[in-house]
Amino acid sequence: MEASRPETGSRLGIIAGGGRLPLYVAEAARVHGEDPYILALTDESEQDWAGFDHAVVGVGDYGGLSRIFAREGIGRVVLSGAVRRRPEWREIRPNIRTLLQVPAIIRTLLNGGDDTVLKMVIRLIEANGVRVVGADEIAPELLATEGPIGGVAPDADDRRDIAAASAAALALGALDVGQGAVAVGGRVIALEGAEGTDQMLERVQALRQEGRISRRRRGVLVKLCKPHQDTRADLPSIGADTVRRAAAAGLAGIACEAGRSLVLDRDLLVKEANGAGLFVTGIVPRVGGEGK
Amino acid sequence: MEASRPETGSRLGIIAGGGRLPLYVAEAARVHGEDPYILALTDESEQDWAGFDHAVVGVGDYGGLSRIFAREGIGRVVLSGAVRRRPEWREIRPNIRTLLQVPAIIRTLLNGGDDTVLKMVIRLIEANGVRVVGADEIAPELLATEGPIGGVAPDADDRRDIAAASAAALALGALDVGQGAVAVGGRVIALEGAEGTDQMLERVQALRQEGRISRRRRGVLVKLCKPHQDTRADLPSIGADTVRRAAAAGLAGIACEAGRSLVLDRDLLVKEANGAGLFVTGIVPRVGGEGK
Repeated sequence: MEASRPETGSRLGIIAGGGRLPLYVAEAARVHGEDPYILALTDESEQDWAGFDHAVVGVGDYGGLSRIFAREGIGRVVLSGAVRRRPEWREIRPNIRTLLQVPAIIRTLLNGGDDTVLKMVIRLIEANGVRVVGADEIAPELLATEGPIGGVAPDADDRRDIAAASAAALALGALDVGQGAVAVGGRVIALEGAEGTDQMLERVQALRQEGRISRRRRGVLVKLCKPHQDTRADLPSIGADTVRRAAAAGLAGIACEAGRSLVLDRDLLVKEANGAGLFVTGIVPRVGGEGK
Repeated sequence: MEASRPETGSRLGIIAGGGRLPLYVAEAARVHGEDPYILALTDESEQDWAGFDHAVVGVGDYGGLSRIFAREGIGRVVLSGAVRRRPEWREIRPNIRTLLQVPAIIRTLLNGGDDTVLKMVIRLIEANGVRVVGADEIAPELLATEGPIGGVAPDADDRRDIAAASAAALALGALDVGQGAVAVGGRVIALEGAEGTDQMLERVQALRQEGRISRRRRGVLVKLCKPHQDTRADLPSIGADTVRRAAAAGLAGIACEAGRSLVLDRDLLVKEANGAGLFVTGIVPRVGGEGK
């Protein structure tokens, strides 16, 4: 007996984790003529979704997701925003199509890096006949472009910091750990783990206040996509808030990966960056070499 | 005209940075029949050195160090403890032997990783005819041995976490960044930058409390020497306090590099580890492979 493949529609679904990214994606989708349906993740999405059709679902509730996909005629899904809490295996609520995959799910949750977990989530969603698409496919204007974004450009010292932090971020990314690093005076001083970029920048600010970073050197934040990352999920992103935190940490600027990271609310971000004298620039990292 | 090489004596000097390591080294040196003279670094050494001959010197005060070396007949020096604050180049007070090296000093302080800076400090001290020796040369019993230290051994899950955190620590060490990493459930979740091991463990504890790390998986701290590190300075070290912080962060244990890291106050550390059910083990990391 074969489980029949569900009828799929064409409506866009947005699985919304934490942070402001899902709202930017949802608004950008509307601009592009979509009528997105929001699947807000329990304990993750803190956004008020009153202006959008939406439902709240558990992180591991694949059965619930399937029912909503069918009911709302959702045929494409964007994964968007941070999922800080991994589902515990006891929370996984499979549907008939994911039931056979439960041992693989549990193994992945226990052993996998972020990227492995995301690839599994994509596979499970696509088992419903729903296509997972990147946020950039819905709203390509969100992608970072190469070169300065805003009115300030990195100088020679900044480029050296970009190279140092890029090398560390790439080495970590190859191990499926983190996407961000901060270098000051050519020296990497902070690396992003599970705590995320915001907390890493707070740490840099504290190190600066304690005099453990040179007061004369500013430094940069670099955010890169992991080399083997599925770009349909968890693209690195920066926003006006990232610029504010970088400024508070005394940094000279931010470099993010051109074509593989998202710049949210670009107008506000540029205004904040120009006001604080920070550069924001899109780079193309080179393994073993220097970012441009 | 040649600057005459100073007369050097044979007394042991200990340049003491922060933390408890310098005191352990000083006490161990006495056990080995030495009469150490302590050069406590301004703003770094918070130890009460009343029981030892000592003087306080600035981090960049090579002129002051030279005078003390000559006056006290110091012929060997151990560098010991954390130097959190790098000297700013304005603080460097050269003597006649280091004057010619000032441009190199400034360049190194501005550009170098920790390891580069330490190698420079060693070169400057040895310009005084004083030999820099490793703490392990004075008190070899401080070195971590291979295999379990204490009554608990890592299980299969722990060994997988050790392998994951070792790979990250080695990748960072190769870039002269950090010596420590924490893995939970096979996934690296925290990386040590300029903040040091204690603050990294506090971060893991916070992530655990916020539910951002699985409650069912314990995890391990790994501390390794950087691959190209001069082992006469800044060997990774663990003590009873590290065990207490690891326990508070919910970790299963600690792995440190056998032969290239220091275990301080081993009896107390073993007592704490056994009491908390934590393993502490010495490993031999393999580049691209698994720690034993």
